[in-house]
Amino acid sequence: MSEARLQRVRDRLAALDVDALLLSKGADLPWLTGVTAMPLERLTMLVLTADGEATLVVPRLEAPRVTPRPEEFRLRVWDETEDPAEIVAGLVGKRRSLAVSDRTWAADVLALQARLPKARWQSASLVTGPLRAVKDDDEVAALRRAAAAADRVATALVQGQIDLLGRTEAQVSREISDRLLEEGHERVNFAIVGSGPNSASPHHDAGSRVIGSDEAVVCDFGGSLDGYCSDITRTVFTGQPPPEFRDLYAVLERAQAQAVDAATPGTPCEDVDGVARRLIDEGGFGPNFVHRTGHGIGLEEHEAPYLVGGNCDPLVPGHAFSVEPGIYVDAKWGARIEDIVVVTELGPEALNTVDHALSVVA
Amino acid sequence: MSEARLQRVRDRLAALDVDALLLSKGADLPWLTGVTAMPLERLTMLVLTADGEATLVVPRLEAPRVTPRPEEFRLRVWDETEDPAEIVAGLVGKRRSLAVSDRTWAADVLALQARLPKARWQSASLVTGPLRAVKDDDEVAALRRAAAAADRVATALVQGQIDLLGRTEAQVSREISDRLLEEGHERVNFAIVGSGPNSASPHHDAGSRVIGSDEAVVCDFGGSLDGYCSDITRTVFTGQPPPEFRDLYAVLERAQAQAVDAATPGTPCEDVDGVARRLIDEGGFGPNFVHRTGHGIGLEEHEAPYLVGGNCDPLVPGHAFSVEPGIYVDAKWGARIEDIVVVTELGPEALNTVDHALSVVA
Repeated sequence: MSEARLQRVRDRLAALDVDALLLSKGADLPWLTGVTAMPLERLTMLVLTADGEATLVVPRLEAPRVTPRPEEFRLRVWDETEDPAEIVAGLVGKRRSLAVSDRTWAADVLALQARLPKARWQSASLVTGPLRAVKDDDEVAALRRAAAAADRVATALVQGQIDLLGRTEAQVSREISDRLLEEGHERVNFAIVGSGPNSASPHHDAGSRVIGSDEAVVCDFGGSLDGYCSDITRTVFTGQPPPEFRDLYAVLERAQAQAVDAATPGTPCEDVDGVARRLIDEGGFGPNFVHRTGHGIGLEEHEAPYLVGGNCDPLVPGHAFSVEPGIYVDAKWGARIEDIVVVTELGPEALNTVDHALSVVA
Repeated sequence: MSEARLQRVRDRLAALDVDALLLSKGADLPWLTGVTAMPLERLTMLVLTADGEATLVVPRLEAPRVTPRPEEFRLRVWDETEDPAEIVAGLVGKRRSLAVSDRTWAADVLALQARLPKARWQSASLVTGPLRAVKDDDEVAALRRAAAAADRVATALVQGQIDLLGRTEAQVSREISDRLLEEGHERVNFAIVGSGPNSASPHHDAGSRVIGSDEAVVCDFGGSLDGYCSDITRTVFTGQPPPEFRDLYAVLERAQAQAVDAATPGTPCEDVDGVARRLIDEGGFGPNFVHRTGHGIGLEEHEAPYLVGGNCDPLVPGHAFSVEPGIYVDAKWGARIEDIVVVTELGPEALNTVDHALSVVA
């Protein structure tokens, strides 16, 4: 457990009057301890109390995955016929104000609530979110390595080294995934390939559609490298883009670049979103930009800070997030450009450096 | 939405006095509607009330992923600056008894609880678990296809066609994953490779350890094919196994086979576990069998019914689950054998048919 992180967590627990932090699935637990809860039904949970106790509740068959760190946390191994919620409730005791990690499964939350009827519950991200959002130098270096690996795949894409014509979206998604691994990621988190009308679906599931000529193809992909996430989007065109698409893309390219430039220390998150939105609106595509401008990134693919209307929190050095406006014309085509950006004292620094110009790949 | 499934769900809602079912992440939602919630922070949730209303709350940028089925459910698309929990709470209204899908994120549950302070909450698996646990013919056929695809990979493993010696666990895990995809899976769910002392860690994360000669290697892998999961474990030995390991393996092989044979209609789930546990205990390895004998399988890799002490539910035709006892000798070696079994009127049928004999692969 990082001593510095632990101290900052304890300070926030005190400031927020939270008696215990309960960390299960998601990145709070590995961020603090190096241990990851498996995405399965057996409960792994760290009970970290404000008054200094730390116990990791872990199923016996997964205990060998945990490196014991007795100076940092006690291990409470549970057997298959024990009730882990009962064990956690016992560790919580009479503490009332509890914060549970955001991705903990509902079944576990409800089991704990049944055994702790007097507790008050909140999301652990209220405690950990602002801490995890500010990356230290090692974390920025890790994000930089992940971005560089994703950049090598995106470069292959925009230079036409990944065949598109005549292949299904799923096949291209598979090749992008393979390349992410070859470039050093330990895990692929997603590889969206949306072609033709599917390019207008921002979170399209790459499927059996065969990519034809004269189509927009939105590729949005990322993985984890040394635990930290990459995430990049480039849009290519399989043929000479018609003027109408060039116009759309020019609006998007300008909006994305200016939103990156706006990400300076002290700027409210929503203002970065506002810059992209205003430019896309002025370009005549306001209703076609159907999502926020970006999300924080780190151990999780999406985390604080979110660049979205209503988030008035100011950017600070160490914040890392995507800047990814998109324009989607239903049933026709769409485009998105995404880079990961880190805020420094000197201003925004884009970690992804692959060319933004519209690439003709066939 | 499957009419038959919907009717069975409504019958159970009435029987259990549940006013509304709230389905988000996990397999309940695709089982009922064909729609899958993405594993990200934006809320997708079906609100299905006992009195007949069905509304799918979905973020705007993911709405194109959903095929509209107006005769089955209404769509309520939410924009980035809206509060989806507020929308769900509005749909729930004054209903009090709510069941929420097990894998819904804690952050969403807490947001809903804050907006519905008078509601009583339970896990949706109380409603859906027993229904999903009994597979119909189409589902058994899908499990059979997934098992056959996994069998082809396991056959390559036990016949020595997957190189082990001198490669890292992670490299072997990657090859197994690639083969699972080549054999028809659309997704790899996991590919455990535990070698040498790591074979004693049941849920070992395949890592940088280089596999040597004269080692046990436990390979446990599976994916999804047409939505349904495969899951198989075989243990191989990279050299002539010493008598001590042969003895251990003989106990395990007998325990696994007899546990499969015990999985007849009407048998309590825990009795199947008991058969394997008794034989392993009699073989002198009782304390080394540190997990339950099996888990149900279907759209999720682990689901009801669980073959574990304390589960007195009787098996019925259509139940599908793993039978996977293991013996683990700390810091030395381990072994596990796993097949997927379906209960039929005539008795248990193993879907995996790869040889169980201890395979020498180097």
